[in-house]
Amino acid sequence: MLERIRIVLIGTSHPGNIGAVARAMKNMGLADLALVAPRCEVQTSESISRASGADALLVTASLHESLDDAVADATLVVGASARSRTLPWPMISPRQLGAALPAELSRREARVALVFGREDSGLTNTELQRCHRHVHIPTNAEFSSLNLAAAVQVLSYECRLAWLDAGEAGQAAAPSGEVPFGEAPCGVEWDNPPASHADLERYFAHLERVLTAIGFHDPERPRQLMARLRRLYLRARPDSLEVSILRGILTAIEKRTGGR
Amino acid sequence: MLERIRIVLIGTSHPGNIGAVARAMKNMGLADLALVAPRCEVQTSESISRASGADALLVTASLHESLDDAVADATLVVGASARSRTLPWPMISPRQLGAALPAELSRREARVALVFGREDSGLTNTELQRCHRHVHIPTNAEFSSLNLAAAVQVLSYECRLAWLDAGEAGQAAAPSGEVPFGEAPCGVEWDNPPASHADLERYFAHLERVLTAIGFHDPERPRQLMARLRRLYLRARPDSLEVSILRGILTAIEKRTGGR
Repeated sequence: MLERIRIVLIGTSHPGNIGAVARAMKNMGLADLALVAPRCEVQTSESISRASGADALLVTASLHESLDDAVADATLVVGASARSRTLPWPMISPRQLGAALPAELSRREARVALVFGREDSGLTNTELQRCHRHVHIPTNAEFSSLNLAAAVQVLSYECRLAWLDAGEAGQAAAPSGEVPFGEAPCGVEWDNPPASHADLERYFAHLERVLTAIGFHDPERPRQLMARLRRLYLRARPDSLEVSILRGILTAIEKRTGGR
Repeated sequence: MLERIRIVLIGTSHPGNIGAVARAMKNMGLADLALVAPRCEVQTSESISRASGADALLVTASLHESLDDAVADATLVVGASARSRTLPWPMISPRQLGAALPAELSRREARVALVFGREDSGLTNTELQRCHRHVHIPTNAEFSSLNLAAAVQVLSYECRLAWLDAGEAGQAAAPSGEVPFGEAPCGVEWDNPPASHADLERYFAHLERVLTAIGFHDPERPRQLMARLRRLYLRARPDSLEVSILRGILTAIEKRTGGR
């Protein structure tokens, strides 16, 4: 289970933080580290010393130019976020995330990506809107900004607890038909595999083209239309057949409107 | 909270069961009973005796010709169901249902309907496909069919436990931003009120008209298209603005295709 959980760091600016993240991950049994456009060197004396023995993760870490590339195969993308956003997004607690993982990862093709933003500015709205869920680590309102590695530590710890429980819980929970997120096609009893992030992004791109073609959407004046539609569909965790149906509808609309 | 939870019985055939349901409800502090097309008289000596003091609920129970009518104002419709169905639906446990209620009912306009089927045949697929969630009461596989009032008792008990916990939990849980179903716009932090059952049914009717008009859907050969689309959208628990957006898209398609 743990080998299918990926820690994704976007635009990290301090090598020491990357090293400390590698250590936190290895402490908790995670090994899949993805770095998106780091704003610093990855292998430095500081990162290696902060990794204190986990520096192998700095070597095996994958480098990506974009979040989409780093999570293309992920079936659940969870972004670490502070609570208040202009557009509220489905928010879970670290404990809820852990509780969900055994069933979430019960399918062999399932991949979970936990996404962490920049030390100074976190994740952008564009990045947050690519996540199925946002996870908020409870903090003191007067002093709420966690160190990057500390945030990774907390979520990695919840992942480990969930993995330890999975011995009984996982075996029992998965076949029980109880879907942790209540809606996600992640349980073993679901009839179709979950759609991948890449499937969903292709659908959103197709949807925006069609909405623009029929004059419902103006990319020049987007308002929050695509963000709201993203939130709606990401909330539902469409499975692969559902995405095919939705894309088939878009193609049928294009044929009727000469949109293609 | 409990006053906004409705017990809906469809096609009940035994007056004694209706009386026993009224008793179970009153025992647990529920009072909103809705009867859809009962196949027996409601106020009989048997129903009144089985209600043993809760017969006021038999008098105040609302009578409906259809499930849609009985749950039109409901913002969450949960159908009691056995597990295995041809089309898997988001399934929750009674405990998960209880845990979700405080935040689910944190909005004043929220209404939860718990729907129970016929003694002999339960809920039809059409009825089950009008539910956001299905709830399964764990039973012995060799002897799995619960008495109607027993099923109402179990879920009413979970409702009461949730209400008792809400003293602390509810106050704490609702503002915490943790959405029990992980996606439902039911928390106080959501930006729009949830759509009602009636809003959603108008959307599904509109969607089916448009899909038929553009030749994507053939009501003569429905396959599982509308059922799958219902499952997808009901899973997401669309809020009122999202339903307006979705209907606006359908209207825009109709204008472009002369579908209207």
